[in-house]
Amino acid sequence: MFRPEIKVIDCSVRDGGLMNKWQFDDAFVCKVYTACTEAGVDYMEIGYLSSETAFSRDEVGPWKFCAEADIRRIIGNGEKKIKLSAMADIGRIEYHDIPHKSESALDMIRVACYAHQTDAAIDLAHHCIDKGYETTINLMAVSTVGLRELDEALDDLSKSRVPIVYVVDSFGAFYSEDIDLLAKKYMERLPGKTIGIHCHNNQQLAFANTISAIISGINYLDASLYGIGRGAGNCPLELLIAFLKNPKFKVRPLIEAIEAEILPWQEKIDWGYYIPYMVTGVLNQHPRTAMAHMESDKKNKVTQFFDQMTNSTELE
Amino acid sequence: MFRPEIKVIDCSVRDGGLMNKWQFDDAFVCKVYTACTEAGVDYMEIGYLSSETAFSRDEVGPWKFCAEADIRRIIGNGEKKIKLSAMADIGRIEYHDIPHKSESALDMIRVACYAHQTDAAIDLAHHCIDKGYETTINLMAVSTVGLRELDEALDDLSKSRVPIVYVVDSFGAFYSEDIDLLAKKYMERLPGKTIGIHCHNNQQLAFANTISAIISGINYLDASLYGIGRGAGNCPLELLIAFLKNPKFKVRPLIEAIEAEILPWQEKIDWGYYIPYMVTGVLNQHPRTAMAHMESDKKNKVTQFFDQMTNSTELE
Repeated sequence: MFRPEIKVIDCSVRDGGLMNKWQFDDAFVCKVYTACTEAGVDYMEIGYLSSETAFSRDEVGPWKFCAEADIRRIIGNGEKKIKLSAMADIGRIEYHDIPHKSESALDMIRVACYAHQTDAAIDLAHHCIDKGYETTINLMAVSTVGLRELDEALDDLSKSRVPIVYVVDSFGAFYSEDIDLLAKKYMERLPGKTIGIHCHNNQQLAFANTISAIISGINYLDASLYGIGRGAGNCPLELLIAFLKNPKFKVRPLIEAIEAEILPWQEKIDWGYYIPYMVTGVLNQHPRTAMAHMESDKKNKVTQFFDQMTNSTELE
Repeated sequence: MFRPEIKVIDCSVRDGGLMNKWQFDDAFVCKVYTACTEAGVDYMEIGYLSSETAFSRDEVGPWKFCAEADIRRIIGNGEKKIKLSAMADIGRIEYHDIPHKSESALDMIRVACYAHQTDAAIDLAHHCIDKGYETTINLMAVSTVGLRELDEALDDLSKSRVPIVYVVDSFGAFYSEDIDLLAKKYMERLPGKTIGIHCHNNQQLAFANTISAIISGINYLDASLYGIGRGAGNCPLELLIAFLKNPKFKVRPLIEAIEAEILPWQEKIDWGYYIPYMVTGVLNQHPRTAMAHMESDKKNKVTQFFDQMTNSTELE
């Protein structure tokens, strides 16, 4: 599928960091940066933009903050050929802690919010626009949002200056038909805006649903190396790049980065397709219970987890 | 998706056996049998039907032969509530070694063939029909078959008495659009016949492509527990059953069987999404090179495998 409007956003460090509190060393982040640059990926999301007062550096790594000095250490002084993005959560970043674009290596700030936070998200995004950034709003967990509430959020977003709005399948609950329907709704309710997609892989559908999104006209595509990300992880970047026919994309640098930096992390953290994540996905629930189960000493007791989540009824 | 015509075929033992020469112990096969029965799965494919002269029992386990005594040991004397299937490869089974249906616990024989073997496959399938079995023909590796050759094979199949013909994505190379197109072609060229789908998961699309097949009107659906199968494996049965809305299906017995018998095998054999399988899938090639790489001591040297397969050109 070759469509020049398509932009690919790598979320390896940002979403992968949800599994290890962003404790990636510089070699990891440098490799992702170099690989994505060489592969022709459009954006690399290097972490979350948070105020230093919101979290302790004793607990979380540098990519929870995206301080300018940390970013500069990764990208060096050479020409930056890939755009950098950071995600901002409502309430975790003070406006005065956001530098002006002219003083930052970041190009884009993506504001993540739940539907009831849409107004606050628009306000934060407008602030970022006024400081010179590209912005998106990523409306999370849309699989749990009521129809009326969603329409209201989309109507608010349509009146905003935010140019890009994301469909986010936080729980990995959607089938391709859901993506088609939501893409249509977002495009109808948000005339003139660009739509993005961020999928989770609980049902092994993150890549397939991203393809469905492309077919439905969605142009901003999130993915991560080998799918690294929270719980079941994301759409694997290497699959997406191999699928897209734009000749600017290269797969090999991604394979190389997977070998060098991602596979070693697989020994330490369990993202990907595991039964507990499958169960929360099918039940359209937050993966936190599955993550807790995976971190416990009964990781492979998957029937127990199933029973706990369903009380032996719903899915039985 | 509730459509009474849909039949689900578990291939855990038969396709999974391609990874361990069918060396599953009886406890494994019993558990798959019980779980599939309790889950409401329509067929369990218990192995290959081969002549004892074609392979040595010193090298391959009992499920390469599906001898009546072996099957009876698994199913016991109780009422059999699930249909049993065996796959037959052209040239590996002598006609006189196929028992009459009245002397066999098998209900269905599925003949696997490449396009150039279609005539031989029809002949074998007719022989099985005449002995009282349900039959299918599974046309393998259709992603590599030329248009004219495929049309000829389908025209031959349309004239046969074989009621069910499978689209088989042996290499895991297809996207959902390919499945849509092939489903349409098979249905046009095979009026009155039922179409089946067997997907491989090289690009994490086996489940998604099976859903596409359902939407396109395909009714015989292959899957396996946790996707166990050759190379990247198959469509995960637990995902498919959770997706299908027919109330006869239950997920829990499948989760239980995965915990008891499948997860332990994951320590010993590497099916699933790995970069070497992804590479052969994207390149539309047989997984044998990837399997050899995965079995070597350089399993994680995925860049080397990529270079070897592409000569640093095709996918670069």
